[in-house]
Amino acid sequence: MKMSAKANIPEKTTDLTIAYIGGGSRGWAWNLMADLAMEPELSGTVKLYDIDMEAALDNEVIGNRLAGREDAPGKWRYRAVESLAEALQGADFIVISIQPGTFAEMASDVHEPEKYGIYQPVGDTTGPGGIVRALRTVPMYVEFAEAIREHSPQAWVINYTNPMSVCTRTLYEVFPEVKAFGCCHEVFGVQYLLTEALAEMKGITGVQRREISINVTGVNHFTWIDWASYKDIDLLPVYREFASRHAEEGFERTPGAWHTSYFSSADRVKFDLCIRYGLIAAAGDRHLAEFMPPWYLKDPETVAAWKFSLTPVSWRVEHKRELVRKAKRLAAGEEKFTLQLSGEEGVRTIKALLGRGDLVTNVNLPNLGQIEGMPRGCVVETNALLGRDRISPVAAGRLPHSIQSLLLRHAIQQEDILRAALARDREKAFRAFLNDPLVAIGVGEARELFDRMLYNTRAYLPGWEI
Amino acid sequence: MKMSAKANIPEKTTDLTIAYIGGGSRGWAWNLMADLAMEPELSGTVKLYDIDMEAALDNEVIGNRLAGREDAPGKWRYRAVESLAEALQGADFIVISIQPGTFAEMASDVHEPEKYGIYQPVGDTTGPGGIVRALRTVPMYVEFAEAIREHSPQAWVINYTNPMSVCTRTLYEVFPEVKAFGCCHEVFGVQYLLTEALAEMKGITGVQRREISINVTGVNHFTWIDWASYKDIDLLPVYREFASRHAEEGFERTPGAWHTSYFSSADRVKFDLCIRYGLIAAAGDRHLAEFMPPWYLKDPETVAAWKFSLTPVSWRVEHKRELVRKAKRLAAGEEKFTLQLSGEEGVRTIKALLGRGDLVTNVNLPNLGQIEGMPRGCVVETNALLGRDRISPVAAGRLPHSIQSLLLRHAIQQEDILRAALARDREKAFRAFLNDPLVAIGVGEARELFDRMLYNTRAYLPGWEI
Amino acid sequence: MKMSAKANIPEKTTDLTIAYIGGGSRGWAWNLMADLAMEPELSGTVKLYDIDMEAALDNEVIGNRLAGREDAPGKWRYRAVESLAEALQGADFIVISIQPGTFAEMASDVHEPEKYGIYQPVGDTTGPGGIVRALRTVPMYVEFAEAIREHSPQAWVINYTNPMSVCTRTLYEVFPEVKAFGCCHEVFGVQYLLTEALAEMKGITGVQRREISINVTGVNHFTWIDWASYKDIDLLPVYREFASRHAEEGFERTPGAWHTSYFSSADRVKFDLCIRYGLIAAAGDRHLAEFMPPWYLKDPETVAAWKFSLTPVSWRVEHKRELVRKAKRLAAGEEKFTLQLSGEEGVRTIKALLGRGDLVTNVNLPNLGQIEGMPRGCVVETNALLGRDRISPVAAGRLPHSIQSLLLRHAIQQEDILRAALARDREKAFRAFLNDPLVAIGVGEARELFDRMLYNTRAYLPGWEI
Amino acid sequence: MKMSAKANIPEKTTDLTIAYIGGGSRGWAWNLMADLAMEPELSGTVKLYDIDMEAALDNEVIGNRLAGREDAPGKWRYRAVESLAEALQGADFIVISIQPGTFAEMASDVHEPEKYGIYQPVGDTTGPGGIVRALRTVPMYVEFAEAIREHSPQAWVINYTNPMSVCTRTLYEVFPEVKAFGCCHEVFGVQYLLTEALAEMKGITGVQRREISINVTGVNHFTWIDWASYKDIDLLPVYREFASRHAEEGFERTPGAWHTSYFSSADRVKFDLCIRYGLIAAAGDRHLAEFMPPWYLKDPETVAAWKFSLTPVSWRVEHKRELVRKAKRLAAGEEKFTLQLSGEEGVRTIKALLGRGDLVTNVNLPNLGQIEGMPRGCVVETNALLGRDRISPVAAGRLPHSIQSLLLRHAIQQEDILRAALARDREKAFRAFLNDPLVAIGVGEARELFDRMLYNTRAYLPGWEI
Repeated sequence: MKMSAKANIPEKTTDLTIAYIGGGSRGWAWNLMADLAMEPELSGTVKLYDIDMEAALDNEVIGNRLAGREDAPGKWRYRAVESLAEALQGADFIVISIQPGTFAEMASDVHEPEKYGIYQPVGDTTGPGGIVRALRTVPMYVEFAEAIREHSPQAWVINYTNPMSVCTRTLYEVFPEVKAFGCCHEVFGVQYLLTEALAEMKGITGVQRREISINVTGVNHFTWIDWASYKDIDLLPVYREFASRHAEEGFERTPGAWHTSYFSSADRVKFDLCIRYGLIAAAGDRHLAEFMPPWYLKDPETVAAWKFSLTPVSWRVEHKRELVRKAKRLAAGEEKFTLQLSGEEGVRTIKALLGRGDLVTNVNLPNLGQIEGMPRGCVVETNALLGRDRISPVAAGRLPHSIQSLLLRHAIQQEDILRAALARDREKAFRAFLNDPLVAIGVGEARELFDRMLYNTRAYLPGWEI
Repeated sequence: MKMSAKANIPEKTTDLTIAYIGGGSRGWAWNLMADLAMEPELSGTVKLYDIDMEAALDNEVIGNRLAGREDAPGKWRYRAVESLAEALQGADFIVISIQPGTFAEMASDVHEPEKYGIYQPVGDTTGPGGIVRALRTVPMYVEFAEAIREHSPQAWVINYTNPMSVCTRTLYEVFPEVKAFGCCHEVFGVQYLLTEALAEMKGITGVQRREISINVTGVNHFTWIDWASYKDIDLLPVYREFASRHAEEGFERTPGAWHTSYFSSADRVKFDLCIRYGLIAAAGDRHLAEFMPPWYLKDPETVAAWKFSLTPVSWRVEHKRELVRKAKRLAAGEEKFTLQLSGEEGVRTIKALLGRGDLVTNVNLPNLGQIEGMPRGCVVETNALLGRDRISPVAAGRLPHSIQSLLLRHAIQQEDILRAALARDREKAFRAFLNDPLVAIGVGEARELFDRMLYNTRAYLPGWEI
Repeated sequence: MKMSAKANIPEKTTDLTIAYIGGGSRGWAWNLMADLAMEPELSGTVKLYDIDMEAALDNEVIGNRLAGREDAPGKWRYRAVESLAEALQGADFIVISIQPGTFAEMASDVHEPEKYGIYQPVGDTTGPGGIVRALRTVPMYVEFAEAIREHSPQAWVINYTNPMSVCTRTLYEVFPEVKAFGCCHEVFGVQYLLTEALAEMKGITGVQRREISINVTGVNHFTWIDWASYKDIDLLPVYREFASRHAEEGFERTPGAWHTSYFSSADRVKFDLCIRYGLIAAAGDRHLAEFMPPWYLKDPETVAAWKFSLTPVSWRVEHKRELVRKAKRLAAGEEKFTLQLSGEEGVRTIKALLGRGDLVTNVNLPNLGQIEGMPRGCVVETNALLGRDRISPVAAGRLPHSIQSLLLRHAIQQEDILRAALARDREKAFRAFLNDPLVAIGVGEARELFDRMLYNTRAYLPGWEI
Repeated sequence: MKMSAKANIPEKTTDLTIAYIGGGSRGWAWNLMADLAMEPELSGTVKLYDIDMEAALDNEVIGNRLAGREDAPGKWRYRAVESLAEALQGADFIVISIQPGTFAEMASDVHEPEKYGIYQPVGDTTGPGGIVRALRTVPMYVEFAEAIREHSPQAWVINYTNPMSVCTRTLYEVFPEVKAFGCCHEVFGVQYLLTEALAEMKGITGVQRREISINVTGVNHFTWIDWASYKDIDLLPVYREFASRHAEEGFERTPGAWHTSYFSSADRVKFDLCIRYGLIAAAGDRHLAEFMPPWYLKDPETVAAWKFSLTPVSWRVEHKRELVRKAKRLAAGEEKFTLQLSGEEGVRTIKALLGRGDLVTNVNLPNLGQIEGMPRGCVVETNALLGRDRISPVAAGRLPHSIQSLLLRHAIQQEDILRAALARDREKAFRAFLNDPLVAIGVGEARELFDRMLYNTRAYLPGWEI
């Protein structure tokens, strides 16, 4: 890449190279395209790599159309490439957002456990589904890490794939010098909720998400906020009162939305956690519920009572079909790509790492002490200070004992699963599975379920005895 | 104290002074009397302090009778004293075994939660009962620690009271230079079980408990053994096979004993934990079950299916009445005190600390690294090397992730409870209560139960707002 | 204090109360007065407390004159107060900049060791002088910490006094919940040097100190920079080349300045340390030299060869006389106070802590992991993120082994001295003294020197046996 | 191996296989032969591997002669083998005692630095000589570790080679699961000195070294004792008084022995360190002096004043010639091998690891917390509890700050050197070299010396750019 400078002030970084692993993606990739197109200070090439080459080629066409638009100041060339190596060669940044396996495996992750009374609204992070998904994702990330070490060891790697912690941890385990971090927008939603609490409780309106300063701490999808401010206002008491007020009925922007949309909720889980633990659980209710014992997930009725939904994988299958059709239309020019900032922080982090202004935002990184009392090396989510070619975690401090205990349980679990996946150690994996808070069943049943789930995902477990 | 020496070999330590806090005890005190009476190398004075002065006076008489017996080579004077300060003055060793509160409080600890479906076989260590017991015990131990700092800062303190970890931890919190450790016999029972497994699986009989070398690791009553040997034989595979063989039916020395005795079990919990976690859980089933989610304690039927018992406090009340009658008979000379080694390690540890031969045994001490991955300072149980005026923990190593996770949960919980008790912080105490694995009920119910239990034990919560 | 808000945007924080301990100071206090006067967003009261009440009263007059000036948008009332308690009552912020003892003690600190061949250019941080100064400063800071705990536990404390690490550490030792940090400008000088290197080596001129992003790590006056950037330029190779180029002759802005000014140097020590250790030592040469074995301080000739000066305390005495005369003239209105930003960060940190915009700057705080491999709790200097009522250290990472070793030596030494001072343990203090890198003399001589220095400072060692 | 058992009591372990790397050794190998021959409970095969095959063959003959002797109850077969792989195959134990390089390299290690005023009495552990020796030893230990991982991963490895810490650390770095520890007799000599102090100060005679209980802590050759007992006697005050009494003149068993023997001393360094640091430095003076700044090693006159010697390598060359001649005589049966226990602990540790009785002794192991405040993983020397197939370090506690500081300096230095050696990083190695306390010279001179020493040892630095 080159930074063009006039006098002392670089105006634009050009010739940047971004490798996109999972470049056929129709969600994250399109978000990135939009954000890059709307960013005037950067330009260059995006190499799209995907095991679904057709999808990557569609995105190549879609992306290249953008360069011609007047409302897109950021000019980028997109190129679908055939191999991981080709994608990584010469990359300054690497973005990874893949779906590990197909929806067939995901259906097993989410729905097999239901036969044993274990319900998961998402099933991609923790619980039986998250564990098995992790087992099949680790080998893919081992391959990515080895390829990065070989082809682009100096590149910055931004991960969006779940399970976030295990994916990021795998990169560091295989290639300890990797410059990787994970980005996730779940916390942003809670910043937005804080603006709503501010409006309702204090009458202060029009506040933007980024004006809400927070201290983030925890593991991805199970993050907590123990300090939140808008200017000189302490938002913790504001939120606690807000949570108490809405604890019973939930906070419904659009009444009943949680019932019709798989991604909505009335934040009742968050409010219950606030009452129990005193702080702000900072992710969607569907994720948070999966980290606890089956308090919120005992059965579908309990889930409904807490006002959120279980997302059936069949819905995801159908939704993807729609996106494929849309991609074809976009590529064919039959539909116009909507240019709109995604709300993700990816492009902002890229700019900061290029020396274009320091940035504080929340990222997922190995714990080097940023969270006291969490094991060294486990991947945690906290604020970090980003500058030229550098990310420095900001100390998040120490959590109350009761929350620390919850977090440790999951951090250790993630380490256990990683070890099992790397060693292809079925027995170790089963012990981790048994120890998940949602697996509140007898050893015999658990063994049966585990064996079946592993069998269903065997195509992605090379070298395992199944 | 004085060590008499002929040539270079000290033969006997005389003039030793032991302070016994809880000196009216009819269990632990009698054990110590017997062990001291049968030990030829030590003699001196035992000062008995108890808030039940009558009980202490009975024990004074009972103890002093022993000095006259020919079968008692250890000659000791016993003296009931009226104040803690008097007991501690000049003490070389301090033994603490008290009952914190009366059976009324214990009945609340154990039986109030049953109204909410929470069953505890013991209720003195963890679970709702253990937590509330801890809250009322901490102020007593604060007083002990302050008195020790003032009157006998150089004395060694041996604690037998439960909750062991919290009691020992409190001593160190208040007086960091205290030379205290906790002794417990639960692990000995598992060593004995290993001799039984050795006999059954290998045909090797006549092995003594102390010939079974073990590596102990964990927190009191939730200890684990990850290495066990008899001479050159690895006992771990032996025990695993033994556990599998007896997992379904249990190992019943006296068939049905678990049904008639409140302290027996068929070790089914231990065997299930071995299958789940791969190692030897090293305490009685009644204790172990309380540390897990309510797998083994769902209801009385579940408890019976796992072949152990819930001990009603009414039984303890009745049992104590019998002991009081027995004490009167012993003091009156109507019944002869049975001289028999207790199996406890107290006197052996005293000898080692006097320089009369090094000893390795399991004790409870603040973690200075003896268990990797456990927080510094939390009280853990591992082997230690005892020598003249010194206890050095032996490194127990690192546990498998899944067991580490269980232990951390309880270690952090204990720290949380200690902090709440010291700060008299009702909200903090409630959060810890809510976080106990046995408290699998809603926030509202939990609040109600907690408030009632706290109210019932309010006489021992000075300075609390209740 | 109150934050006035129009719409949602607070425009000014008024009614702020700042307590200034050492408020008679003629350096730091005047700097703060200037910075406050030039800051439009803040106003309130500064309470000046000083054991030299006359000096405080002078400053009261000087400060109050400023409020009337048109070029001073920040309006402040100054009030000399008679007791520490009065100063602290109601304070939002507490600034501490005192001289511990008189120049008589400082003369002993600096010049007694010269009789044994030990030369110190400053003698206020480390070396024999720094150690003895620390011993007499600790009791003062114990008093401050106790008073803060009693009168203003929620106030933020900004320390400027040396020895910085020991002073700040004492506050936290006595009152662990204190919200204190230390500010020092030594690092700023090195940022300025980096702008000079940038100009010379790259021809980029006009860069401001604050545009140089750095990662700061170390202990105060012995800080290091292992990452420095100007926009997208890596300054480490730039500085290394610059250091090599000037290693032999030094970098002299004003030729010979180091010879005529006690505070100048030709940066030769810094360049030698860069060659030896590969990174940027980030403090003045006079401070840096004191942390090493007597390489740069063997004798006055060696000092001159390295192109810096030994500051005689007699000069300080004379300089102070001038300042006292100047204070009188300022108070009397015979001389006009020069309004000019001091370059210190104090007022900027105050604004950030009030929620008036986040700030990243280097501060001294107990190590909670911000520097890997340094003991927990020792006071270190790194970047931190400041926001409303919060300072979060930014992770500085791990240093090369050789620098880590140097830092540990001094961090441990500081802890040792603190312990000795708190315990008034002369033997412990002597062992620390003996272990200082500059004390390269025999035990007997060292004992003699230590005894004399302690005797000379005995007026400030209450409770010691001297 | 097989353990023969009658009833439950194994009487003898037979068919044991020991691999001896450096099996041509004429010191350590002969010691082991004697100890094995005199041990009735063990028998088996010793495979001798040495790059000097002739020496190994001599030892094969010498060893096999012993089996026929009536005064040798331990019967062993000795076999010289041609490859490392062959030696390791089937080994239960592996002993490593090699000389890294020839006396030519050692002469450079010891005598080159003398040209720059740096004197080292031994030069095999620390200082310029120890550093360069470490650099050439690491590649050898990398090879050993890889071979052990491949051929005998379950074997126990006992290291005797210096630099002990770096050698042992390398084994763990390359093969983290290795079961290795280092044995050294330097501490035993200090236990012996304590018996002498006991005799002189207390009149208690006839005490054996093993009756002196000690707490050992530190790094090899720079170990400290902070607790020492003989039965109920605290030996620390005894030693302190003894050290003061002999500080000036030294303690000379045979007057002037330090002058005529290269391995004697009058313990003056040890006494000076006791006065300075308050504890017992537990190694020979010749080693201890090398860890400090050049206080004791300024020049040969200083060395003589402290009453110990600088061992010229020429003496070692001559001494080796004598041993070779002796080996030939022993092999030829012209001289009878003297059966006498060596005083080393090797065979006792082997017995303990076989389950033939637990043992507490001092060994070198990676720090897992056994010394508080030392980095995790650095090789430290403390007591450990040895049992069947297990070594558990005994917690040595925390050292006084001043000693901790000394130890950290060297522990970090060793880690730095290991990293440099593994990376073949000349610059990193030079920075470590520069940071050694004995290297109190300018950068330029140090560079020159380092380059020359590296050049002299280049034959053992494969892959380095020299």
